[in-house]
Amino acid sequence: MREVAVIGIGMVHFGELWEKSLRTIWAEAALAALADAGLDTVDLITVGCMSPGLFTGQEHLASLLADEIGLAGVPATRVESACASGGLAVRAGLAEVAAGLADVVLVTGVEKMTDVDGGDATFALGTAADQEWEGFHGITFPGLYAMLARVHMARYGTTIEQLAAVAVKNHANGFLNPNAQYRMRVTIEEVLNATLVADPLRLLDCSPITDGAAALILTTVEKARALKPGQPVVRVTGSGLATDTITLANRADLAELGAVRRAGERAYAMAGKKPSDLHVVEVHDCFTIAEIMATEALGLFPPGQGGPAVEQGMTAIGGRIPVNPSGGLKSKGHPVGATGVAQVVEIVSQLRGEAGKRQVQGARVGLAQNMGGSGGSSVVHILEVE
Amino acid sequence: MREVAVIGIGMVHFGELWEKSLRTIWAEAALAALADAGLDTVDLITVGCMSPGLFTGQEHLASLLADEIGLAGVPATRVESACASGGLAVRAGLAEVAAGLADVVLVTGVEKMTDVDGGDATFALGTAADQEWEGFHGITFPGLYAMLARVHMARYGTTIEQLAAVAVKNHANGFLNPNAQYRMRVTIEEVLNATLVADPLRLLDCSPITDGAAALILTTVEKARALKPGQPVVRVTGSGLATDTITLANRADLAELGAVRRAGERAYAMAGKKPSDLHVVEVHDCFTIAEIMATEALGLFPPGQGGPAVEQGMTAIGGRIPVNPSGGLKSKGHPVGATGVAQVVEIVSQLRGEAGKRQVQGARVGLAQNMGGSGGSSVVHILEVE
Repeated sequence: MREVAVIGIGMVHFGELWEKSLRTIWAEAALAALADAGLDTVDLITVGCMSPGLFTGQEHLASLLADEIGLAGVPATRVESACASGGLAVRAGLAEVAAGLADVVLVTGVEKMTDVDGGDATFALGTAADQEWEGFHGITFPGLYAMLARVHMARYGTTIEQLAAVAVKNHANGFLNPNAQYRMRVTIEEVLNATLVADPLRLLDCSPITDGAAALILTTVEKARALKPGQPVVRVTGSGLATDTITLANRADLAELGAVRRAGERAYAMAGKKPSDLHVVEVHDCFTIAEIMATEALGLFPPGQGGPAVEQGMTAIGGRIPVNPSGGLKSKGHPVGATGVAQVVEIVSQLRGEAGKRQVQGARVGLAQNMGGSGGSSVVHILEVE
Repeated sequence: MREVAVIGIGMVHFGELWEKSLRTIWAEAALAALADAGLDTVDLITVGCMSPGLFTGQEHLASLLADEIGLAGVPATRVESACASGGLAVRAGLAEVAAGLADVVLVTGVEKMTDVDGGDATFALGTAADQEWEGFHGITFPGLYAMLARVHMARYGTTIEQLAAVAVKNHANGFLNPNAQYRMRVTIEEVLNATLVADPLRLLDCSPITDGAAALILTTVEKARALKPGQPVVRVTGSGLATDTITLANRADLAELGAVRRAGERAYAMAGKKPSDLHVVEVHDCFTIAEIMATEALGLFPPGQGGPAVEQGMTAIGGRIPVNPSGGLKSKGHPVGATGVAQVVEIVSQLRGEAGKRQVQGARVGLAQNMGGSGGSSVVHILEVE
C-alpha cells in the first residue's frame, strides 16, 4: 500500500448561499484546493454528496462537476453514506492512491440544501433514517437524537447543561472561523432557553441547514515531497469505516455509537495510534449529544465522561484534547455531503499551523470523525504531520 | 497493487418485481454471491445504486443493506454515476482489495424502479442528464439517444435496420437467459413496426424499466486459490473509468462516445490487452444505437462499422466477437444501478464456462462496459481466466 499525503485544501464560506448553485460552490472549493496544491488537473475526482437528487434534482453529479471545472474526461465518482458521504469521499480517494490506480485525486464534498422548502429538506434528510422502520412513522432526526440523549442521561447522568456546554464551546470556536455559518458566541443560558425542538434538544443543540463545499488534493508522499519541496508533509495514516443498524430499533446499545467505535478502532490500528496520541479532533456534532457520544466512542473519554469533560473545558482549544476547533457542524454549519471533507480540511489547517486564531498549539496528530444518520455509518481518518 | 479475483457471483431474475422490496432483491443477490464463494462475511460491501432517494425515498443505503443480511457493523459504501453506478461499485471494490485496505469485498448493484409511477421514474432517470441544460427544457433519454442516432446515421450511413438488428440479436440471446426480463425473440419487422418513441428509436430500440440486483465477491488471487483450490481463477486485470460532458450540447463529437473510448483505453492499458484479444463482451445497450456506438468506441470495429457488423452477425454468439450474450440491457432488463454488476456477473459466467445455452465457446478474456446518462461517464472492466 502506498502512503498518502494531502497537498491541497479548499472550502467555501458555509451558509445560506442563495445566490450560488451547487456546481458553483463546488467549483469554488475544488479550484481553491487545486490552487493550494499548485495543480491544474488530477487523475480522479471523488464527490461526497448525500442526496443531490432530492435536494437539487440532479444525479450523475461527479461527471457534471468534472466538466464544471474544465476536466470533462477525467475519471470521477460520487459516494454516499448520508451525512458521512464526505468522509467516504476521502476514503475512496485514499484507496485509489494507495492501490496505485491514481496518483493525484481531487477529493470533494458538497451539498446544496437551501434550494428546497423546509418540508422537502426534512424529507430529504429523513432518507438517512430507515424509511420503513422510522421515517414512515413520522420521526425525524432531532427526535432520533433526542432519544439517544435521553438514554445517555438516564444511564450516565449526563445533564442538559453539559449538552449546552458543547454548543457554547463550538460557537466560541466558530466565532474564530471565517468560514463558519453562525459566527456568534452563545451562553449556557441562551442554549437552555432556546426553542424546544425535541426534548431535551433545543434549537441551539441542533446543527443548521447549510450550503457548502470543501475539497482536498491527495497524492503519494513521494509526489508530495516533489511538488512541495522543503515543506512538511501531512499524511493520512489511518482510515476506518464502519456501519451499524440505521434504525435505532435494532441497535445493540443506544448509549453507545457502535459504528464510531469500530471505525475509530480500525483507524487507530492502521495508524498505530491510540486516543492519547491525538492533539486535535473534529467530530460529527450534528446535535450536541452526538459530540459527547462521539468523544466517548473514540476513546477520548470513558463512557459517561464525555459530558463532564466538555463542562470542565477539557475539549476547548487549550484544553486536554481540543474537539471541533473549527466550530463543528454546530457553528460552522452542516452541508451534509461536504462535512466530512471540511473536517479533514480543518485538521490539515491545524497540522500545518495555519488555523489562525483557533490554532491548537503543537498539533501534529489529528483525527476527523464523520457520521451518517443517527450513527448508522461512520468514517474516521487520522492525519499526521512530520 | 495486489491482483484481484472474482470468487462468487449472484443475481436475481430481473423484472417487474412488485412483490419484493429493494432490500429483499438486494439480499437475494448478495446471499447468492456469498453462497457461491462459500463465505458468510466480508470486509467491505460496495453498493451501486443510481437514485434510491427518488425511486424509493431511502438514502444511506449501504448501511441499511449490510444490516439486511446480518452484517451491520461491516464497512459499507454506496457509489453513484447514474446508470454506470454498478460499474463504479466494481471499481470501488477493486481499489480497496488492490490497496490492501480490504481482503474480501461484496460488490453489489441494485435498483428498484417500479415502485413509483411512470412520470416519477422518467423524472428520476432524467436526473442523469444535465438538469439545467437538458432536463429543464423537457428532453428525456430516448430523445437524447435519438439525437446521437441521427448524427451517427448522417455521418456513417447507419440504418434503422442495423439498429433493429441489435434488438433482434439481444432478444435472441436473452431468450436463452433464465434471468432475463423479456425472454422473447423479436424480428426486424417487429422492431421496425413498434411504436415510435423518439425518431428513429422505437419501443423495441429501448431498454425497459426494471427491478433487479446483482452481486460479486472480490478478493486477492492468493485468497481465491486458497478458498477454491484446483479451480481456475477469474481475475479482474483491467479497470478504466472516464467521464465526458453530461450535456450533449457541450460534447466534442456526437458520433463518438468519448467516455467509453477513454475508459476502454485505460482498461486495455492496465490489462495489457487489445480489442482483438477479447472473446466475449457485454456493452451498455440502453438503446440499440448505444450498442453500436459502444462497440466502435471500444475498438471492436472502426467508426461507422458497428452497424454493418451487427447486421452481418459478427456480434452474435458464434460470431467474430459476441456482444451481449446475456441479452444485454435490451432483453435482460436495465435496473440502472444493478446493470454494471450484472454485466460482470455475465462475463464471469462465460469465463467459467457456466453460461449454459448462451455460452461463448473458448471464452478466456472478457470485457464489460457500463455507461452513465448519454455517455457522461463510463466504466470498463477486463476479466481473464487462466
